[in-house]
Amino acid sequence: MWLATASGGGPHLVPLSFLWDTERLLFATSATSRTGRNLLENERGRAAVGDTRDLVIVVGSVSPVDAKDTASAQAFADRLGFTPRDVGPSDTLFALTPQGIQTWIERADADRWVMRDGHWIA
Amino acid sequence: MWLATASGGGPHLVPLSFLWDTERLLFATSATSRTGRNLLENERGRAAVGDTRDLVIVVGSVSPVDAKDTASAQAFADRLGFTPRDVGPSDTLFALTPQGIQTWIERADADRWVMRDGHWIA
Repeated sequence: MWLATASGGGPHLVPLSFLWDTERLLFATSATSRTGRNLLENERGRAAVGDTRDLVIVVGSVSPVDAKDTASAQAFADRLGFTPRDVGPSDTLFALTPQGIQTWIERADADRWVMRDGHWIA
Repeated sequence: MWLATASGGGPHLVPLSFLWDTERLLFATSATSRTGRNLLENERGRAAVGDTRDLVIVVGSVSPVDAKDTASAQAFADRLGFTPRDVGPSDTLFALTPQGIQTWIERADADRWVMRDGHWIA
């Protein structure tokens, strides 16, 4: 997925591996990366999955996954073949909890919300 | 391309058609869209071209193209088959002037800057 975050300095955008874990998008990044630091300053994240013509946008708030939540960490490792700890000592598992989900297919099509304000509407 | 912008409220991210016009990325969006409004507040843009495993990131400042610059508008229309005016009355042609360009191929590879602080280094 593509994940956009922001700080006072402006936007950031990186590609990240992720796991859709029932109700959240799980991803790992260093707490000291620009993405990690932005999320400490502003929890808002906007993720895009798909390509530029057929895509899903997920907006919501991002927080670190509780270290006691070993089930999520295991699910992430099982799916992606690595754990945040494999990548580096400050790598952290984060969860994006959706407040809105939007689908887009081609420019000409109307975009369509399938979740708004945390409620599924499709 | 994917274009991330930011305002005080957080990040925004949208897919956009673009033209690489010699030294700038040209794209069109409504001045009243979230992207357009963000750029009035914070000119920083971060664009990604490619897919999540083989990509180029372009960071820089974004400004509206001077309405007298008909050559850029014509180049955009020739390449993309539409003009900002075709899309809507408040659609505006913007230019992202790169200050940094970074390439990424797969997670395991080192990322590589090919432009930094406006200077080509590769």
